[in-house]
Formats: sequence, C-alpha cells, structure tokens
Amino acid sequence: MKNYLRDDLIKLKPYKVIEKNIRHKMDANESPWDMPKLIREILAQELANGISLNRYPDSNAFYLREAIGDYVQMSPSQIIVGSGSDELIQMIATAFVDKGDYVIYPTPSFGMYKISTIIAGGNPIEIPLSKEYEYDIDDFISAIHRYSPKLLFLCSPNNPTGNLLDLSQVRELIKDFPGIVAIDEAYGEFTRDTSLRLVKEFPNLLVLRTFSKAFGLAGLRIGYCVTSPELAEQLCKVKAPYNINSFSQRAGILTLENIDLVKDRINQIINQRKFLYQALKEIPNIKVYPSEGNFLLIRVPDGEGIWSKLLDRGILVRNFAKHPYLDNCLRVTVADETTNLKFINAMTEILGQEEK
Amino acid sequence: MKNYLRDDLIKLKPYKVIEKNIRHKMDANESPWDMPKLIREILAQELANGISLNRYPDSNAFYLREAIGDYVQMSPSQIIVGSGSDELIQMIATAFVDKGDYVIYPTPSFGMYKISTIIAGGNPIEIPLSKEYEYDIDDFISAIHRYSPKLLFLCSPNNPTGNLLDLSQVRELIKDFPGIVAIDEAYGEFTRDTSLRLVKEFPNLLVLRTFSKAFGLAGLRIGYCVTSPELAEQLCKVKAPYNINSFSQRAGILTLENIDLVKDRINQIINQRKFLYQALKEIPNIKVYPSEGNFLLIRVPDGEGIWSKLLDRGILVRNFAKHPYLDNCLRVTVADETTNLKFINAMTEILGQEEK
Repeated sequence: MKNYLRDDLIKLKPYKVIEKNIRHKMDANESPWDMPKLIREILAQELANGISLNRYPDSNAFYLREAIGDYVQMSPSQIIVGSGSDELIQMIATAFVDKGDYVIYPTPSFGMYKISTIIAGGNPIEIPLSKEYEYDIDDFISAIHRYSPKLLFLCSPNNPTGNLLDLSQVRELIKDFPGIVAIDEAYGEFTRDTSLRLVKEFPNLLVLRTFSKAFGLAGLRIGYCVTSPELAEQLCKVKAPYNINSFSQRAGILTLENIDLVKDRINQIINQRKFLYQALKEIPNIKVYPSEGNFLLIRVPDGEGIWSKLLDRGILVRNFAKHPYLDNCLRVTVADETTNLKFINAMTEILGQEEK
Repeated sequence: MKNYLRDDLIKLKPYKVIEKNIRHKMDANESPWDMPKLIREILAQELANGISLNRYPDSNAFYLREAIGDYVQMSPSQIIVGSGSDELIQMIATAFVDKGDYVIYPTPSFGMYKISTIIAGGNPIEIPLSKEYEYDIDDFISAIHRYSPKLLFLCSPNNPTGNLLDLSQVRELIKDFPGIVAIDEAYGEFTRDTSLRLVKEFPNLLVLRTFSKAFGLAGLRIGYCVTSPELAEQLCKVKAPYNINSFSQRAGILTLENIDLVKDRINQIINQRKFLYQALKEIPNIKVYPSEGNFLLIRVPDGEGIWSKLLDRGILVRNFAKHPYLDNCLRVTVADETTNLKFINAMTEILGQEEK
C-alpha cells in the first residue's frame, strides 16, 4: 500500500513494549506494590455509589491540580496535567518546536525525547553523557551555541543511567538560554534534590513529574508539569480538552490525600536500592552505576545472553545491550525485598556459569 | 513574558469548556444515564480485589481492541484506540499532514478538525454546508481539485447540525482521492447507516467512533478508529505508548460484553429524539433541523438571550448563536424523558415571553 505518512516519520519506530507473561517484572521502573488497599476501597465505594462516568471529565482537572499544587507548594495555575509524562513531553515539543527547529537532549536517556521531537518536525541533537554517565555541561553549552535550539530536554535522575544533574548545573545551563528547558524528574521522589525550586527563578523552565513511578499509578496515566503561570498558559494551547479521565483524576487526588503511605514506600525503595547496589557489587564481572532512581544500570560481560537467561527464570529487566552508548548494559528496577533477592540469586547463578 | 510558542499557534484558542453547576446538562451530547449498575459493580469488585494499577497498561490494548473488533466485525489489526476521538483526530493530523499541507473539512462541524490541523502545521480549508446544512459533494470535489489536500475530515451525522452523509456521497468523494479520508462517526450508533462497511473497499479510509456518546463513557475517554491494517500500522507510529489506561480498557471491555444494556438506551434516545423534535416543532418561532444524532440543532429569534434564560433555569445547552454559519442557533442534547420535558416547558415559557 501507498505510504500516506509524512516523509519525516517513515523511519520512526513506535516506542516498543515487551508484552510477555513474566513472574518478576523489573523492566519498567514501576512500583512493586499496587494501589494501597485504603485507596482502592474508597474508589470501589465511589464507583458503586455513583462517581459520574457518563459526563466528560473536568477539563481543567481543577481538584487534582490543586492537590498537586499543595504537594509541590505551588499554585494550581503553575500545574498542567497530562496522560503520563509522555503526553507532556509531546505537548512541549508540539507547542514550542517548529519544523526544522533544533532540540537538544542527553544520550543515553529516555527514548521519548527523540520520538516527540521527530513527531513535532524538529531536528534532534543528542549530547552524549560522559563515560561514567555524568552530564558534561560544557558539551551542552557548546551545542546550545552551535544550534540555537528551541528546546532542551534534561532528565534527572537520568533514565537509564541514574545520575543526577546538580542544581548548579541546571542554573548554568538555563541562565542565558533563550529557549525552553524541560527537566524530566519522573524519578524525582527517589532523590533528595529537585529543580522544582528553580521554577520561581526561571519562567522558561518546565519540571515534569509523574504518578507512574514513586506513586505507583502507572496504570492510570497521570503526569504533571510545574512551570510559570505564563508558560503554563502557552502550553495549554495544545492540550487536548479532556486528557485525564474522571477515574484517574479521583485516584490521583486520593493518592495525594494519603501521601504518607506513598512516602513509606519510597523509603523502602531507597533502602532496597542500597541493598541491591551492594549485593550487585559483590558479584564478579558486573559494573553497577550509582543511581538516584528506583533502578540500577549494570554492565555485564554478555548483555544479550544474560538478559535471556534472566527471562528464562521469569525475570524481565530492560535490555540496552545493543544501545550504542550502553554496550552490554541492563537496567533493573528496584522491587520489593523478595523479588530483589530472587534477582540477586539469579545473577549470581548466571554469572557463576559464565565464568566456567 | 516572551512568547515561546510556535508563531502559527499564537492565535490558537484552546477548546473551551463551560464549567458551571448545572441541573440539566444538555450541552455536551453525553448520555443521560450513568454506567449501568451491573458494570459498576463488577468494576468495583475488580478494583477491591486487585486489578493491577501499579503496572503500565497494555500498550496494545489487545483485549479491548479484540472486543471492539467483534462489535464492528473487523479484525483487531484494523482497530486503533485513543483517548477519545479527540486523540485520534490529532494523531491522524500529526501522522499525515506535513507543514503547509491542506486539510479539508466541513463547516459548521466539530471544532477539533481545525485545532488539530493547526497544531499539525497544516492549512485548514473549511467547506460550508448548504443553507439547510446538507453536504454539497460538488463543493468538496472542487476544493479537492483546487487544494490537493492530504487529509479530508468528514463528520456523519454531522455535529452540530445532525445531517447524515450518504454512503454514495462518501464513495464519490473517496474513489479518486489520493489522500486520507477520516469520517468521524461519533454519533454513528444513533443512525442506521455507517461508513464502516467501506473500510474494506478503501484502504485510505479511517472511521472514527467513540465510547463517549451512545456508550455513555465520556468520563473514561475511549475512542477508536477502524481502518485497513496497513493504515493502522502507519498511524501507530505516532501513538503514545500507553494512551488508554488500565481501568478504561477494562470498563470498555465490560461495556461491550453487556452491549444489550447499551442498545436499549440507544433506542430510548432515538425515541426521545423523535419526541423532542415534534415538541419543538410546535413551539412558534423555532426552526428545528432533522437530526440523526443524540442532539437537535434549533434556530431561535434571539440565541444569546434564550441561552441565558435557559441557564437561569438550570438548563445548559450549547450556544452557537455567534458562529458565522449558525446564526442564533443552539444545540440541545437529547436527554431522558423528564429532562426533555423540562427543556420543552422552559422553551415554551421563554418563547411565550419573547412574543409579548
């Protein structure tokens, strides 16, 4: 059949998702725990007693934005919600990137910056991280001077490498930059530093957050963006009128009303991350990178082979073995203690065999 | 503050939604009935007992697409789901329209064709309907010859005018057209004819449907597109990986499993549409247009004034009074009998006052 697609989209590959029946899902940086029972029960009750689903959702997601505003200590006018950070990344590219405009982002990093840039008709420019996967700010500054990009995506902690961008580095990047800086903090809850406080200083800064990771609501698709009220207004021009459904809005509000339950889980993940990091360090022939997210990047002797052997044991991790900047690397999501132990045992066993 | 938006988006106004506390909501063509109790109870039970919300949704929405495939008697490979038809309209414009390409659609019609075209960087060309709000196919054919558009949006039954596009007219439009034809059948369940059967004949045809109207699930944001497997694959290149959340997928499947409940409601709406049409015809100074949707377009002596007077009585209808092609027109959603009677009484009262 004829190709009807825009010429510049033909090579685009859709974001791929592995769909298998897996016993231990450690590939997508999800929370290992499902929605707390308390919140489920409230939602089930509301559902039985008449939360209105035949009516369109609140287009402005007012109460959800108010609850998020309380949580990040900003005004609701500074909050935009999206169907996960994915939708917000696409909205940002669509709103601010005209055909041919340059967009700069780190590599290796989250795949949606490139896809969204291409869909928006922009020119993607990838800035490699250092060998130890740290941000090299000078490289970004040179690229800014060379390309005059409209938009800069940053990811902190960076996915899949786990490294953090210092606020001083963010300041250095943003202070003379005339375009938009979007910092993806999808894993912001697992670290101690956040760019949120820079939003007051820089009206061209957008900080992206999500309910999919620390908040454990990946299934309900809620992301949000914190920015200046003026930029929020500009971005809203490309917002779909009803992008967050009524049930997700309600679930998001209830999660924030019970934030202590979430915080307890975050602490458990941070402790498990320490445990997993130490345990992996003790396995020979693995390099583990320090991480501020709910995942660890590891480099192994044979990435593809080990990924398959884990899969044989019902463990799915994210396979980056063939990524040009992530040679033989795998990314493992920090799960609950039992699952983490199973992963460590499997790795010990597999790498023991490899050595023979 | 500086404008960071793309120049061609500055004039764009976001789709506006009136948010008021209304007793009788007859403005958004929603179903007057909430989700059937049976389905609510199943969902509430699944929610309490562990539908997994911490995991990402099925990216392919496989079971939902299978259920939709059964319903429309097509293969799941011909179905793409979106967050309402809105997202599908935007995906279609994004995938197939390059900067400067022409996009043709009727006016007056659904507002998202224009917004999505502009967001995609396309050139919108509006083809007016006839004075009686019928499609004039010759006007479309002339425009096709003149502009060589990449994309043609059609809406049948047309919103807000209620008129249907004959299948013979669709055939005439599509048979020599080298671009994409997207027919929005958001109200397709309320009529007897559908373009779905043309999908087999024309691989460049996309038919859009929704769960928001006849299926009564506006709050959960489910739309779908039926097309050739080849075009589905092309369109999927711009699909966000997780665009339908887990809860909505489940609710959509349960609704299709209980389709008889829905069909009964559709019949009630069709009967109420007849009643409302006749009753409105008897009120002097109103012109009512025949409609194949779950709404009626009426022309009144003073659109703005009557809209306000209805609002004073707690009745919200859609106000098109200032639309260049809908002078003094209002659109009223067909609701349940009680609400429709209240609307008729209010109109009789208001127009009685007008005459004095």
